[in-house]
Amino acid sequence: MSDNNSTPDPNDIGLLEGLHTTRAIRRYLPEPIPEEHLRDIMFAATRAPSGSNRQPFRFMVFTDSERSKEVKSLIARGAQTLWNEKRKVDGYEDTSVDDTSPKARMARTMQQYVDNFADVPVLVLAFLVRYRPPTPTEGASVYPACQNILLAARALGYGGVLTGFHGFVENELRSLLNIPENTFIAATISLGKPAGNHGPVRRVPMKDVVFADTWDEGASWAIDPSGTAILSRGGFSS
Amino acid sequence: MSDNNSTPDPNDIGLLEGLHTTRAIRRYLPEPIPEEHLRDIMFAATRAPSGSNRQPFRFMVFTDSERSKEVKSLIARGAQTLWNEKRKVDGYEDTSVDDTSPKARMARTMQQYVDNFADVPVLVLAFLVRYRPPTPTEGASVYPACQNILLAARALGYGGVLTGFHGFVENELRSLLNIPENTFIAATISLGKPAGNHGPVRRVPMKDVVFADTWDEGASWAIDPSGTAILSRGGFSS
Repeated sequence: MSDNNSTPDPNDIGLLEGLHTTRAIRRYLPEPIPEEHLRDIMFAATRAPSGSNRQPFRFMVFTDSERSKEVKSLIARGAQTLWNEKRKVDGYEDTSVDDTSPKARMARTMQQYVDNFADVPVLVLAFLVRYRPPTPTEGASVYPACQNILLAARALGYGGVLTGFHGFVENELRSLLNIPENTFIAATISLGKPAGNHGPVRRVPMKDVVFADTWDEGASWAIDPSGTAILSRGGFSS
Repeated sequence: MSDNNSTPDPNDIGLLEGLHTTRAIRRYLPEPIPEEHLRDIMFAATRAPSGSNRQPFRFMVFTDSERSKEVKSLIARGAQTLWNEKRKVDGYEDTSVDDTSPKARMARTMQQYVDNFADVPVLVLAFLVRYRPPTPTEGASVYPACQNILLAARALGYGGVLTGFHGFVENELRSLLNIPENTFIAATISLGKPAGNHGPVRRVPMKDVVFADTWDEGASWAIDPSGTAILSRGGFSS
């Protein structure tokens, strides 16, 4: 398995390998993403499925314009607000935690992510234009496209994260961008070229979440490939 | 761009190419998916991101057991109900429509899909275990995983569709499978080896959905690669 820092040759990464190894990337080099790469990334987004192929997804892509800087700064405030809450509620401030523990490392990564959020190379907002009242399944028509963005970024040597940071500054954002009322802001995605080293994807064992005929009973074949990194739930890891 | 019927060698399909060319597949050969492929597909699902890496997604995979047959038959009833409604509401029964039109072709594909739904080779139910009241953003923690399933299937020579067919038989399904009350049934996904020919992915032009600084104004670089198949919204096409 190659890591996210590998040379950006799209032909190098197979589809299955890409799916198995894409992780969240929260530290970026201060480099822009060229427009031809943005095009390939957003083209992938628009290939995603949606209910009845209605294609209710919309995207706004912010790079280095004045407007982009305003949007990034605004959402950076949302990021700070969320992280300040989370640090308290989820015990990231517990000083008894070993400084080298995954949790302590994660706290440092998140802190630098939100501290530098206004300078992320690219910020994508994903939207859903509603044609009916909100339903829990409506995300099926926008989040597959968000996942395509993260995977296409990976194919081209970039990385990113799907966040809900906009939620803390939503009113300001709607008015700044003239977002129509029937339109749901589904995600804030940051993208850029990975800086530094990134660990593997960490998840609970497959058998904990993949069942066959019986709820909560791991399928017999649901066995992680050897060498898979395991992490318990929560912790923002990857 | 290769089509979905190509030889199932995962090393043949690059990540970006896979993202750009995966489409809905609704006709399957009567062949099972071997367990090692199911493992690779569901492993991809579990690598998907979720809010704070909480991993609230769960999956049930139905193949050929008695229970699987019950579940497939039950959801086939849901599929019939949905399609019967849709045929009327969305004008698929309008006999003035040219028999060779995309809409007429789609109607035939959907009819055979729901008629044969009880025999789909593999059916995956995707769930979200809720830890808070429903929110519109909760889909961000399960639909990226659903998209990974469809893409991983493609990598291994299979194809599938994300549907909401379970919604029409949800109570029966919950009681048959003992699904906990706090658990949202997010998607029904059918998978199998593609039968016959499948057209390209059809979407609206990129500039209609990918904007830069201004809502509803296509980004200057949002230009579909030449040869991209264009279709207006709706129509279940791909």
